[in-house]
Amino acid sequence: MEMSEAALKKIPGGVTAAKGFKAASTAAGIKYKDRKDMAMIYSQAPCRSAGTFTTNVVKAAPVKWDKDQVTGGAAAHAVVINAGIANACTGEEGMAYCSRTAAAAAQVLGIPQESVLVASTGVIGKQLPMDRIEAGVKAMAPLLDGSVQSGTDASRAIMTTDTKNKEVAVQVELGGVQVTIGGMCKGSGMIHPNMCTMLGFVTTDAAISKELLQEALSQDIKDTYNMISVDGDTSTNDTVLVLANGLAGNPEITEKNSDYMAFCKALNYINETLSKKMAGDGEGCTALFEVTVKGAATKDQARVLAKSVITSSLTKAAIFGHDANWGRILCAMGYSGADFDPEKVDLFFESTAGRMQIIKDGVAVDYSEEEATKILSEPEVTAIADIKMGDARATAWGCDLTYDYVKINADYRS
Amino acid sequence: MEMSEAALKKIPGGVTAAKGFKAASTAAGIKYKDRKDMAMIYSQAPCRSAGTFTTNVVKAAPVKWDKDQVTGGAAAHAVVINAGIANACTGEEGMAYCSRTAAAAAQVLGIPQESVLVASTGVIGKQLPMDRIEAGVKAMAPLLDGSVQSGTDASRAIMTTDTKNKEVAVQVELGGVQVTIGGMCKGSGMIHPNMCTMLGFVTTDAAISKELLQEALSQDIKDTYNMISVDGDTSTNDTVLVLANGLAGNPEITEKNSDYMAFCKALNYINETLSKKMAGDGEGCTALFEVTVKGAATKDQARVLAKSVITSSLTKAAIFGHDANWGRILCAMGYSGADFDPEKVDLFFESTAGRMQIIKDGVAVDYSEEEATKILSEPEVTAIADIKMGDARATAWGCDLTYDYVKINADYRS
Repeated sequence: MEMSEAALKKIPGGVTAAKGFKAASTAAGIKYKDRKDMAMIYSQAPCRSAGTFTTNVVKAAPVKWDKDQVTGGAAAHAVVINAGIANACTGEEGMAYCSRTAAAAAQVLGIPQESVLVASTGVIGKQLPMDRIEAGVKAMAPLLDGSVQSGTDASRAIMTTDTKNKEVAVQVELGGVQVTIGGMCKGSGMIHPNMCTMLGFVTTDAAISKELLQEALSQDIKDTYNMISVDGDTSTNDTVLVLANGLAGNPEITEKNSDYMAFCKALNYINETLSKKMAGDGEGCTALFEVTVKGAATKDQARVLAKSVITSSLTKAAIFGHDANWGRILCAMGYSGADFDPEKVDLFFESTAGRMQIIKDGVAVDYSEEEATKILSEPEVTAIADIKMGDARATAWGCDLTYDYVKINADYRS
Repeated sequence: MEMSEAALKKIPGGVTAAKGFKAASTAAGIKYKDRKDMAMIYSQAPCRSAGTFTTNVVKAAPVKWDKDQVTGGAAAHAVVINAGIANACTGEEGMAYCSRTAAAAAQVLGIPQESVLVASTGVIGKQLPMDRIEAGVKAMAPLLDGSVQSGTDASRAIMTTDTKNKEVAVQVELGGVQVTIGGMCKGSGMIHPNMCTMLGFVTTDAAISKELLQEALSQDIKDTYNMISVDGDTSTNDTVLVLANGLAGNPEITEKNSDYMAFCKALNYINETLSKKMAGDGEGCTALFEVTVKGAATKDQARVLAKSVITSSLTKAAIFGHDANWGRILCAMGYSGADFDPEKVDLFFESTAGRMQIIKDGVAVDYSEEEATKILSEPEVTAIADIKMGDARATAWGCDLTYDYVKINADYRS
């Protein structure tokens, strides 16, 4: 992305920020008590859609449903999302529930069944309580609303072990017309997107061809969702959907011109922000851990190295302990599968508390452990490794490994 | 291994079980106080050696030293091991310390320097206190002893975060002559051998050619050390050494005859036993978690699937919680990279408390959660997945993910 940062204007809100998008949410009683657990996104105009889905061989039923609709080319009009049960490993019964959910929404919204996308997150292997899902769909339709608050409520309704709701919106000028992109997502365990139980939903009023919308998304996830990890577990349900309804009125983007680049930049801002929010709210975590590898020969090499570090359990535990255990970082780079010369690596730690060099040419410099611990005690800490092979760089985002991660996952189902 | 189990006779001891092998240990004060932290293995006769070493790009100095000696073909006569400092990421200074350690041992033992192998485990990035290492070598030489106790003491001296020492010995008849193989190893974090900060040392009085000794080891680690994981972190120091001094007097094994098969079987017993001991004593763990994948099309496919499950943080946390969260097992199989049909998978849990089927054809059977929790509450639990594609099978060993793993690794250096 070569354009200047100034072209982007951050605004409040999420999936309802763009023109013509509405959201609703409700407490359907799927698993949780005393909280909302279903959400709906609806566009006044039919949308072009793009999607990226889990690479896990075990794909949840909603992933299969959405993939069929998005690649089939039907216009997308609405998304129905539930938290609590993932509808994964549910066989034919689970597939039938996707179509019943879509049918229920289609009927109450007066749109085609194939224009309804569905997404689920939660426990694997349990069947959805279809009566409650259908009742939830009916309850949400009359509540659809384009306010910022209704988008925020939706972003809360899709949370599972997340501690914070996650949404972001931005505006960019395309062909002299102001276009808005907004999104929401949820984490926060089984997060090792490839593509990416994260669910992400991005809405925009930009006019853009379906082909370029998909390409923009497919390219961008490599540097955003696919560069985060909470626990190395690639979920059965990972889904990112982008809906574009064209209501901004910009000249339709049909080629890779400057408008396309500007759109990609805005999309990147949304996806990177949502990705960092997911990593920073990983199950049980106390810190966002950012790792940049620079001086790489290729972008792919930089990505593999950065991702290996944020995925290392030992490194993550050291970050929790505010311990500058740089040997574990070098070790994780070493087993990543990417080649480099360990004796050329420089390593730096950085946070709002300062920046310091830890390794020069593969060997520790004479640094203060006390100072390093101070830097590593902030809620966002960065490690920067320079491998001195070229000009490529990549950044990955993870989090520390804590007692609470274990606690959450030792009794998640109970 | 087609032979009957009866051909193997388990005996007490470890590295001193085979004829002509002695061990010693001492408190050199490298890092720990009030405990031994150095060990020495010595053979009365020069040995043929075989070794497998970490695949990590970042290789500790002792790994480089041993690789040179083992592949260079020099006879091996002694091994010097220290715990507390890994001598990894230590540059040229670290390499010089390997040769100084070997020189010190060579002098006091009256053997060539290149016949001394060295191994280190502990913190990465710190230099060894050479004066203490040299003093330790000198202190150990006169203590060398062939008793079971002295082997056991050595296996204790090499421990880091291990809670139990690990040794095993077995006898097998080769060409009518009784041959002994014994071994010791240590874990217990940064364990994801590929080959394998595990260190493993196997001694035998068998007469076998160097080529076949190496081949027997290289093949066997694929089903033993390389099938365990504590935390997914492949160490910089992983080393397994086998020393064979030929003192049993069996007809030398120079071809793949029935004696070779019997030797391989005994070696497999040693390596599998040591591997399971490491997995079952993983940092902070409360249970050994064994995963068998059967019905695979190929052995490799079975290995990839089994290893992916024992490596999954979410599955490991569920085992800690005694939670039959089978969705995580299927999920981990799904992202392993191996292909299979999730809708054909049968899954069983097994322990001394019983055996039960959890999934049939990819969907949960009507099992009792209470009963499943009972089975999963034992110190050794097994999951068996049948993917119904062929006849191949593989087993991997891991452990649960616990609060104590986080605790140990958040402040390992302090």
